[in-house]
Amino acid sequence: MEIKVYQKIITEIYSDIKNVEDLGKVANYIPELGNVSAENFGVNLTTIKNESFGIGNFEEKFSIQSISKILALTLAYKLEGEKIWQRVDVEPSGNPFNSLQQLESDNGIPRNPFINSGAIVVCDVLLSHLTNPKEEFLAFCKELSNNSSLNYSEKVAKSEKNTGFRNVALCNFIKSFGNIKNNVDEVLDFYFHICSLEMSCKELSEIFQFLADDNFRTHKGNYVITESQAKRINAIMLTCGFYDESGEFAFRVGLPGKSGVGGGIVAIHPDEFCIAVWSPKLNKKGNSYKGMLFLENFTTKTACSIF
Amino acid sequence: MEIKVYQKIITEIYSDIKNVEDLGKVANYIPELGNVSAENFGVNLTTIKNESFGIGNFEEKFSIQSISKILALTLAYKLEGEKIWQRVDVEPSGNPFNSLQQLESDNGIPRNPFINSGAIVVCDVLLSHLTNPKEEFLAFCKELSNNSSLNYSEKVAKSEKNTGFRNVALCNFIKSFGNIKNNVDEVLDFYFHICSLEMSCKELSEIFQFLADDNFRTHKGNYVITESQAKRINAIMLTCGFYDESGEFAFRVGLPGKSGVGGGIVAIHPDEFCIAVWSPKLNKKGNSYKGMLFLENFTTKTACSIF
Amino acid sequence: MEIKVYQKIITEIYSDIKNVEDLGKVANYIPELGNVSAENFGVNLTTIKNESFGIGNFEEKFSIQSISKILALTLAYKLEGEKIWQRVDVEPSGNPFNSLQQLESDNGIPRNPFINSGAIVVCDVLLSHLTNPKEEFLAFCKELSNNSSLNYSEKVAKSEKNTGFRNVALCNFIKSFGNIKNNVDEVLDFYFHICSLEMSCKELSEIFQFLADDNFRTHKGNYVITESQAKRINAIMLTCGFYDESGEFAFRVGLPGKSGVGGGIVAIHPDEFCIAVWSPKLNKKGNSYKGMLFLENFTTKTACSIF
Amino acid sequence: MEIKVYQKIITEIYSDIKNVEDLGKVANYIPELGNVSAENFGVNLTTIKNESFGIGNFEEKFSIQSISKILALTLAYKLEGEKIWQRVDVEPSGNPFNSLQQLESDNGIPRNPFINSGAIVVCDVLLSHLTNPKEEFLAFCKELSNNSSLNYSEKVAKSEKNTGFRNVALCNFIKSFGNIKNNVDEVLDFYFHICSLEMSCKELSEIFQFLADDNFRTHKGNYVITESQAKRINAIMLTCGFYDESGEFAFRVGLPGKSGVGGGIVAIHPDEFCIAVWSPKLNKKGNSYKGMLFLENFTTKTACSIF
Repeated sequence: MEIKVYQKIITEIYSDIKNVEDLGKVANYIPELGNVSAENFGVNLTTIKNESFGIGNFEEKFSIQSISKILALTLAYKLEGEKIWQRVDVEPSGNPFNSLQQLESDNGIPRNPFINSGAIVVCDVLLSHLTNPKEEFLAFCKELSNNSSLNYSEKVAKSEKNTGFRNVALCNFIKSFGNIKNNVDEVLDFYFHICSLEMSCKELSEIFQFLADDNFRTHKGNYVITESQAKRINAIMLTCGFYDESGEFAFRVGLPGKSGVGGGIVAIHPDEFCIAVWSPKLNKKGNSYKGMLFLENFTTKTACSIF
Repeated sequence: MEIKVYQKIITEIYSDIKNVEDLGKVANYIPELGNVSAENFGVNLTTIKNESFGIGNFEEKFSIQSISKILALTLAYKLEGEKIWQRVDVEPSGNPFNSLQQLESDNGIPRNPFINSGAIVVCDVLLSHLTNPKEEFLAFCKELSNNSSLNYSEKVAKSEKNTGFRNVALCNFIKSFGNIKNNVDEVLDFYFHICSLEMSCKELSEIFQFLADDNFRTHKGNYVITESQAKRINAIMLTCGFYDESGEFAFRVGLPGKSGVGGGIVAIHPDEFCIAVWSPKLNKKGNSYKGMLFLENFTTKTACSIF
Repeated sequence: MEIKVYQKIITEIYSDIKNVEDLGKVANYIPELGNVSAENFGVNLTTIKNESFGIGNFEEKFSIQSISKILALTLAYKLEGEKIWQRVDVEPSGNPFNSLQQLESDNGIPRNPFINSGAIVVCDVLLSHLTNPKEEFLAFCKELSNNSSLNYSEKVAKSEKNTGFRNVALCNFIKSFGNIKNNVDEVLDFYFHICSLEMSCKELSEIFQFLADDNFRTHKGNYVITESQAKRINAIMLTCGFYDESGEFAFRVGLPGKSGVGGGIVAIHPDEFCIAVWSPKLNKKGNSYKGMLFLENFTTKTACSIF
Repeated sequence: MEIKVYQKIITEIYSDIKNVEDLGKVANYIPELGNVSAENFGVNLTTIKNESFGIGNFEEKFSIQSISKILALTLAYKLEGEKIWQRVDVEPSGNPFNSLQQLESDNGIPRNPFINSGAIVVCDVLLSHLTNPKEEFLAFCKELSNNSSLNYSEKVAKSEKNTGFRNVALCNFIKSFGNIKNNVDEVLDFYFHICSLEMSCKELSEIFQFLADDNFRTHKGNYVITESQAKRINAIMLTCGFYDESGEFAFRVGLPGKSGVGGGIVAIHPDEFCIAVWSPKLNKKGNSYKGMLFLENFTTKTACSIF
């Protein structure tokens, strides 16, 4: 599809949904996230030909939170290879994002890398490979997106550290099963920093091109992961990207995607484009209310579901 | 891709896998299923242009079991419309196919239509619409596939009736929450019959063309369900088609699919083809061991995953 | 303690509690139980010396429901001996009375004989021993209490049969694990009849003398079960007699006891007495609201807890 | 019963069980506990008249571990009164001692004060009342037992701190529900110290006299808790003192009791005595194998069950 067609459809849906009453609520379990204006609403689509269109607050940076789990997984997958699946599974959990229940019967192997427990294990894997984890992970993201402005929000990382008792519980619980190899505090510090990454919709739709474009290379000419690995990450996004609303997203939107409690969502149409949406108010399952609505309308009008 | 290319690749993989040691076990919880020869192994692919290629025991009929859940859902979706999702959800369960656990916390709303509890509710929906459920459902299948030879196996239906205590439990449990409207015995009799449908790989790859081909019409010229509804069924197959191995199938194979304990698997490549595989021995999760292996090799060699 | 002292204390507490606002609700999941007047309130205490005192509606028969689980267990224990504990455990469940969840992880062995699943297994054990189960069980109860007026309520048994889908589910679920040996319909018919037994507070406080009096013999001179077995039944009553409120009852009342959804409660003071209370409105856990309140006051004022 | 009778029975059972093959295993999840000789076996009974009899290693101190949960609860109950039950429930859990599962559905309210989660909340309550928690708690224990030799084992406390990830998980998990008011590290440090208390069987049978003797006063003449409160603690011990083997202990032994993973068990016969047993090898549920066996024989031979 031509970028102009996308532009027209995005503009229409954007103005429709802008006026819809937002039934969601801004996440407040990380206090710092509560300071964002709930009115923000941005969309950006970038095709694999590098054509791009944005609307609304598409250039404003926000806390990408769990969307960063894709980036952490990508680097860990690259470094650890298929062995990584001995540490974390690829199954939808059927439970909320921060549940501890299944870990008990699953002996500390998280169901997938996109729930908190799984992402914490992925961070532990990274710590075993990296000398300066925070710096090296950031450098990886910068190369991936050819974007040197990327950074953590120390404020948000600190805010989550002070209140993230559930994540501390998860990490210690997994450690008790032997599936965390490094120091718990270091794993969590790294995890909280990764979650605090800030990007705009435009930046998000650019950094995930490697999942849309089979021939993707970074501006330095490097391959990121193999085509097969990229497809597998897309598959996990489709089955597990939205916690216990993953089936609903596949059903309504029909694209691999991933949400964050900052209100962002990215979605991939393999061989076509990456689209990012941002609206801070979340539905009950922790996914952006207007973001979900926008994407549902978008794939309906463009008939671009992968199904 | 040309049918000849598929033919070459299928033939190669088939002969490779035929000799692989089969680590699976034939299902014996329905006694009648235990009588099938474990050596059977068949594959058939049919493109949306109606080109077809089969190998091995691709013309031998077998008990399609849970694969029939797609057909039941399709007819119920057609008759009931989107209201059906008030009775059954579209989320992966993260639990075995016959689990009762989640039903308790979910108040009798099954997680999806492809676990037993969900399919039983779908049967209940059909009973509320049909006058002669078994006859009308069979007629629907016959029109869908232009195949008048389709039939139930009374032997298998009876065998399951005599031993399917878990399904009787499920149906009564859901009834206790008010989510079964008809008589429990009638719902189960219908459910056991639907599961007893017999088809060959060739027939399976034909009957599911309506999920691969957006413009599908039956030989009588009738549309089955809308394009959007077909995509949604594909989405549910991808997230929920293989019980608690659904994520694994999406990860390794990357196509919407559905398995049955008779050892059959169907998979759809939207706008391209439907493929059916049959090998009776099942892995621990209840999915055909060689069937899974075949399809993983097939999408790897053809690079035809939807991701 | 002299019967006169009990009489004085019972009379006082009775008149206090009679006027307390009843925050409970009459059980309506068995339609026939909903027809009982919620105003009924009776108490009867019988000492092991056969002194007795009753007040209020203490001579009116009501549906004893789950209280009959003690009688079924007693006869099954007598007939099967210690082997019975291979079929049902003696642990508190920590779950509601009709939960199916634990059965799945416990492979069909119910946690204790006083939740529905456990009592259904006990009924199955009885069916394997008795030729005319309903007649012989009733005869056992009549001898135990020297009371030929005892009988089932066919109305209540039928009412539960028509609506007891949860119990049908439980029985089939356990059967699927192999822990029901007889025909499911026969087990349930027997179970529903046992639950439909009707007794007054006076009759209840008499029939359970064998649990209070170490030297108990029936009027025909027969021993019922051994002293050690009686103590063990008391122990199970204390830890499991009130579903997921068993700890609360031990904590507040401090006597082995058992409740029924008909609003009855019996409690035993070993070597002293048996007391029965009846008030149909139930609290959220399914135990008589005023019955619990009465017994808490009673053991506080008499200081007769076993602790 | 006279102390001489107890002495005779204890001596007999002790020599019988000493030679029984010990099917248990020494706890090794706290490394320091693994250093204790598995051959130790001691028993001590002290009556409310302060008559005492011990045998075997009854004067050797060992790590009392979870038995200290009774002492922590007693002091917290004394200081906080009945309000404490808003923070922790009195129901058996039906789950292992360190399970996190129920906390999720119970919103961070532990089922009872004798599982780890409950004892951690009790420690948090104490921290809110005490200025120097470790010193004041120890002083309380010393007065209770008139025994100035009581002390923590810093080695064991440190050993558990270094490996107790599950308890760290529990404490943070409860904190995430708001049911821990103090700093997590301080709560855990206090908890690990309390568990590290060391006592002999003799000392244990003395310190718990306040639960056996209604008129108990400390050597300084102070009442500890009210008679009603003592009875309630006994009730919780009976329903919850042995994790998911509590029902079994009530069934076989029939006394309120509490075990620890150091291999100790105390049991109370109200108005009669306190008995303590020590043998380090534990059964699968985490309770002393020979300790359970000894007490079962003891209550059988003395017929001293509370039922």
